[in-house]
Amino acid sequence: MGDGRTMTPAEVRAACRDGRLDRPTAGLADGFVQANLMVVPREAAFDFLLFCQRNPKPCPVIEVVEAGRVEPRCAPGADLRTDLPRYRVYRDGRLEGERTDVRDRWSDDLVAFLIGCSFSFEEALAAAGVPLRHVEACSNVPMYRTRLDTAPAGRFQGPLVVSMRPIPAAQVPLAVRVTGRFERVHGSPVHVGEPAALGIADLARPDYGDPVEIRPGELPVFWACGVTPQAAAIASRLPFCITHAPGYMFVSDLTNASLES
Amino acid sequence: MGDGRTMTPAEVRAACRDGRLDRPTAGLADGFVQANLMVVPREAAFDFLLFCQRNPKPCPVIEVVEAGRVEPRCAPGADLRTDLPRYRVYRDGRLEGERTDVRDRWSDDLVAFLIGCSFSFEEALAAAGVPLRHVEACSNVPMYRTRLDTAPAGRFQGPLVVSMRPIPAAQVPLAVRVTGRFERVHGSPVHVGEPAALGIADLARPDYGDPVEIRPGELPVFWACGVTPQAAAIASRLPFCITHAPGYMFVSDLTNASLES
Repeated sequence: MGDGRTMTPAEVRAACRDGRLDRPTAGLADGFVQANLMVVPREAAFDFLLFCQRNPKPCPVIEVVEAGRVEPRCAPGADLRTDLPRYRVYRDGRLEGERTDVRDRWSDDLVAFLIGCSFSFEEALAAAGVPLRHVEACSNVPMYRTRLDTAPAGRFQGPLVVSMRPIPAAQVPLAVRVTGRFERVHGSPVHVGEPAALGIADLARPDYGDPVEIRPGELPVFWACGVTPQAAAIASRLPFCITHAPGYMFVSDLTNASLES
Repeated sequence: MGDGRTMTPAEVRAACRDGRLDRPTAGLADGFVQANLMVVPREAAFDFLLFCQRNPKPCPVIEVVEAGRVEPRCAPGADLRTDLPRYRVYRDGRLEGERTDVRDRWSDDLVAFLIGCSFSFEEALAAAGVPLRHVEACSNVPMYRTRLDTAPAGRFQGPLVVSMRPIPAAQVPLAVRVTGRFERVHGSPVHVGEPAALGIADLARPDYGDPVEIRPGELPVFWACGVTPQAAAIASRLPFCITHAPGYMFVSDLTNASLES
């Protein structure tokens, strides 16, 4: 498939649809917005949209695709049932399994939410000279369930999930300022240093993604993460939902630059 | 009732509840967030929340008060059925009438939305030395239906409504920058000058509120307005909703400063 960075978003989606791409999407289609996916039955859609409204840091809504549709406005020609590299299906708050295609699990009763992803600000961090360890290592960013609660909405409640990047101490202010320009995609960090204060016992054992090395002089910096809805689906014992697999995102035609404020 | 600027939010709400206050709320309880109100039946709540998500400039959601509740978190002790100075009741997209109390129109099936209001940034404009003609005149800010469409969501569609303030030409950039710090409450203007481009034929005849003088050297500057949901209720022939009367807002305990980004 050549250099993933130079693939277009439509090429990434087509490769997913054809079963030719099954890897985390970090670094693919450079410059374009990638999104977390959360798909819920219509009767849960108001509660979930309200959950997003009350928790804008972990759940910034990029687009809502209403029941009966599978093609988002942010990606003409796409099909949300096939165009992500990997999905998760949850029933009654338990992971039923991962799949590369969810056409046989889809119905006209489902409402899909595309939620902003921190990959959108990683381009700006890199441009500002902030190193990104998981990108250097070609691994998935480490993610952790915290002991901080989200604001509940209807049936949805659960812990805040964060992603972590080790940042050299002198660059922490820069990293805060750069990501603060992207409030529509998680924005500035929720926490700097002190993982124990978030209830994270061991940074080497993330709940999602891969561990990364923290070098001397670096601080772990934590951003709200779009996997938070999956933790809410589990904590709330939601009867049914479909999500992306963590790190295996939907690649849209929006540019990261368009989300900068 | 003394100087309205120095009343507390709770005092304003109590005066409304007791029938002692029936005037536009501009200038009351200085420094505190005032909100537009939109109350819809539960079955329309997802569509309306999605309408707000798709139209964040006119419809920035401050809080959603779920069915069965009348006390917002942003105003402990308040009652949304009595604590605004004046309400409007719409049926099938037509104004049924204005009321000072809607307890007899309320039911446990209603969901209430508090939507940000431009009064929140007027304090910052005044502090920056930008004159506010309607405040000087003790009148209601002029508001206009435009020929710009909002992004539809489910049954909700309709024109964008804007508020207008005449700004000296040299201060237009300052007014844009100051209000741009308040993206949670309409934020920067949607249009500067050229009312005809918005489909406004005569600035002297606003659709809501009172006309104001535009002096030589001033430009009309237009901000997205929280009356937009009322125009959508009319255009969409919504079976039932309750709103504030334009200019007669709900006064919360949030500070304007807390909405600045």
